[in-house]
Amino acid sequence: MAELSDNICVRKAQKTDLAAILRLLADDRLGRHREDTSGSPHADYLTAFDAVSRDPNQYLAVFEQGDEIIGCLQITFIPGLSRRGALRGQIEGVRVAANFRGKGYGTKMLRWAIEICREQGCKLVQLTSDKTRQDAQRFYKDLGFVQSHEGFKLEI
Amino acid sequence: MAELSDNICVRKAQKTDLAAILRLLADDRLGRHREDTSGSPHADYLTAFDAVSRDPNQYLAVFEQGDEIIGCLQITFIPGLSRRGALRGQIEGVRVAANFRGKGYGTKMLRWAIEICREQGCKLVQLTSDKTRQDAQRFYKDLGFVQSHEGFKLEI
Repeated sequence: MAELSDNICVRKAQKTDLAAILRLLADDRLGRHREDTSGSPHADYLTAFDAVSRDPNQYLAVFEQGDEIIGCLQITFIPGLSRRGALRGQIEGVRVAANFRGKGYGTKMLRWAIEICREQGCKLVQLTSDKTRQDAQRFYKDLGFVQSHEGFKLEI
Repeated sequence: MAELSDNICVRKAQKTDLAAILRLLADDRLGRHREDTSGSPHADYLTAFDAVSRDPNQYLAVFEQGDEIIGCLQITFIPGLSRRGALRGQIEGVRVAANFRGKGYGTKMLRWAIEICREQGCKLVQLTSDKTRQDAQRFYKDLGFVQSHEGFKLEI
């Protein structure tokens, strides 16, 4: 567990955090159509949580203030040959709880994630953002990210 | 080793393929400024190759016709909670050898990669493409990918 400013702590997610993380993922304009948060976590989420926990190249982080989980994000460390064998840190599933938005917490979360990538030896941090999330895009550019790529998805 | 059509075989890359893969990565408008292919492979590439080989969630594939490596790509399987715990297949480092371009080999390579993602249980295949690679973007759209996201990179 590490402490960020404003009494925010960050740590790896535990299985007991699953319901809170799913509420964060679903409390989102796009996420609410994608997630199933009726009742206790669906078995698919438990399977996925176990797969994330077993994989040393995944870091699913939860951010807490007191007993409340106020945000989450996932970092994936991707080894590869491109760019002189650069390790990449990829960030997915960034969410801040509704009543904590617009207060700079997201910036602190991302700065922490970038620092973790640096500590792991990454040369590059990458992420994609839905084209309709224009606020998010400004946010990432303010953090120094370059909007250099088109992001493609194929549901199968 | 699997056989695609046109006598193309695909298999996991071995360390002895490294020099050929690096030539493919460097034989590219953007890649030529990023890679070091002078002399034998730099130690950074060997370290990266080992990291890729050790990680069961990486599949670095080489495509061969006879004894010649004519293409490569890397698939990363990413477990996560979003989209009902969907496993994602991410494709990076797609290259076709210069004298094999424009002949439909890339399409066959990508279709093979999508099928591998399906077999692994992925619900989503994703990739990014530099905004200046307009031919590549048409290629991915023709394969059914949706250009729904902005891709951000931060060098650290």
